[in-house]
Amino acid sequence: MAHALRLGRRGDGAVAGRTPPSGCVIVKDGRVVGRGRTQDGGRPHAEVVALAEAGKAAFGATAYVTLEPCAHHGKTPPCAEALVRAGVARVVAPMPDPDTRVAGKGFDRLRKAGIEVTTGVLAEEAARDHAGFVLRVTKGRPMVTLKLASSFDGRIATATGESQWITGPEARRAVHGLRACHDAVMVGAGTARADDPSLTVRGWGDVPQPVRVVVSRLIDVPLMSKLASSAREVPVWVVHGSDAAPTIRKAWDSCGARLVPGTVKGGRIEPETMLARLGEAGLTRVFCEGGGQLAASLLAADLVDELVGFTAGMALGAEGRPGIGAMGVDSLAEAPRFELVEARPVGGDVMHRWRRT
Amino acid sequence: MAHALRLGRRGDGAVAGRTPPSGCVIVKDGRVVGRGRTQDGGRPHAEVVALAEAGKAAFGATAYVTLEPCAHHGKTPPCAEALVRAGVARVVAPMPDPDTRVAGKGFDRLRKAGIEVTTGVLAEEAARDHAGFVLRVTKGRPMVTLKLASSFDGRIATATGESQWITGPEARRAVHGLRACHDAVMVGAGTARADDPSLTVRGWGDVPQPVRVVVSRLIDVPLMSKLASSAREVPVWVVHGSDAAPTIRKAWDSCGARLVPGTVKGGRIEPETMLARLGEAGLTRVFCEGGGQLAASLLAADLVDELVGFTAGMALGAEGRPGIGAMGVDSLAEAPRFELVEARPVGGDVMHRWRRT
Repeated sequence: MAHALRLGRRGDGAVAGRTPPSGCVIVKDGRVVGRGRTQDGGRPHAEVVALAEAGKAAFGATAYVTLEPCAHHGKTPPCAEALVRAGVARVVAPMPDPDTRVAGKGFDRLRKAGIEVTTGVLAEEAARDHAGFVLRVTKGRPMVTLKLASSFDGRIATATGESQWITGPEARRAVHGLRACHDAVMVGAGTARADDPSLTVRGWGDVPQPVRVVVSRLIDVPLMSKLASSAREVPVWVVHGSDAAPTIRKAWDSCGARLVPGTVKGGRIEPETMLARLGEAGLTRVFCEGGGQLAASLLAADLVDELVGFTAGMALGAEGRPGIGAMGVDSLAEAPRFELVEARPVGGDVMHRWRRT
Repeated sequence: MAHALRLGRRGDGAVAGRTPPSGCVIVKDGRVVGRGRTQDGGRPHAEVVALAEAGKAAFGATAYVTLEPCAHHGKTPPCAEALVRAGVARVVAPMPDPDTRVAGKGFDRLRKAGIEVTTGVLAEEAARDHAGFVLRVTKGRPMVTLKLASSFDGRIATATGESQWITGPEARRAVHGLRACHDAVMVGAGTARADDPSLTVRGWGDVPQPVRVVVSRLIDVPLMSKLASSAREVPVWVVHGSDAAPTIRKAWDSCGARLVPGTVKGGRIEPETMLARLGEAGLTRVFCEGGGQLAASLLAADLVDELVGFTAGMALGAEGRPGIGAMGVDSLAEAPRFELVEARPVGGDVMHRWRRT
């Protein structure tokens, strides 16, 4: 199962929407005879890939799948049917499909065909791996990872806005790897203006590029920016307010960007409805790279599922720009808390990952 | 030598002033026959303790010492003499005594007596271990370790000043351990007022308590504070400005505190002369626990040798109190930089240690 989960994870960021990035390992007489993961774009599914590799060896074998096999005719024929046809003897899965309309139906189909079904194996790990998919199905929003690359004292730029580079090349490379594990990378307008980032994945080979999301009520990001000028190569989505000037909307549309209308509340794009829109549009894993205001609005609305910090050995002092803006937290009891997943050196910086408790 | 260095380190915080916390291991025919470290308070020296343990076995043995043995008659007879008298055949040491008045004299004495002297072994490690002693001898100031226990975004309290507890019990225990490795713990007046800390070492057994230093130009810390009321049990030193009211000075003096006059510059106690005074008074390793202004003034003056961060999985937002105050850093090139020594989880928090590059 751990092997199947590892396979499934390779689809993170490459498989978006209704299909979860899952994995499948087929074992017969103690030997692996087939392996597969949901392919980039979401098809074929993991089970189909693994069964194809196993061929006739699948007969009487055990299939380890990271999620309940689908039982409905969607864009592909149901995987439960494929497992039955191949004659597998046993299916081991950590968890049912979170979609209540299909949950249990895949397992039912298998059991009816006389296949032994074991569930609950490494369920916690699988739930974590499928968090984006599960959140989208159950809450209608993608999972959100918030990244903060800051000085020792939590600053992301000097008072004058200088931010390149606080962290070192290894940390920046790790950020590219994290981008690749998400189906979208998101920034606020301030960061888009200040850093003119391209937000693409570089240095990790030929991986699918995540969608680039810019949150900007008035779309006050230059049309000369790297994002606008590369919108035809890698998708750019602009979440804007209803008060964004029609001419600017049109100009971004002409650049090839997708315009996503957001709800404005208190002068800002309201994060809850924004994520609902992004979920509707198919996103399951969003990697937010700031700036401080967008980070604060997501945290204050309790919409951040994971934090990733990169801390550099440099002090910038209180005039420096804060990595997380005003959140309206008055007491420690109100502050959102996260549980430590991992902490280690990455190059000359410290990387620390946290999960919402 | 590594063994001797480990022994020596046990004296950190317990051996202050002119005597460095050093270690000595005596080896004969591949067996350790004597071990010692400079005892609490600075006497007897490591060599004397190790020679006493070795007894007659020291004859013809090799002595590993973490610093050049002293050659002058101070409060104890010279260690070089003791080594000669015991008949050791060889002395291995990483570095000479940094005090130019004595450097080399210990080695000379040994060589004249026909003892083989090897230097430079683990010199880098030894220089680090002796940093407090070396800085005091060469620059007239103690080594400074700055601690920051903060939220994920570098805040040490909410806007309303609530700070207990951002980090967990394991991190707080580790802080007590760090206090014990220094000969003084230092805070600014704001922290002394806000937290009313006792700044003692608790939970680490019967260890020597570090001196508690409060930096407060006007000594605006309540006489009802834990620090003032416990000044007779564990030393409290108050670094104040010349404009501190004589009545308040007198009151603290009556409490048993030691008054250390500081120089006021720009409305604040000037950190360079302050550390010079503390060095004169015998301190070699100072552990600064904030607050933000004192931390910023030490960092801005490039007087911080080590940083220790404890980062919690909690976000407080930009209204929270910054861990490091205004430093006047405009560009990244001006920011003081530190090299990562260690990063690891401590309880539910991340501990990271850095050294000035």
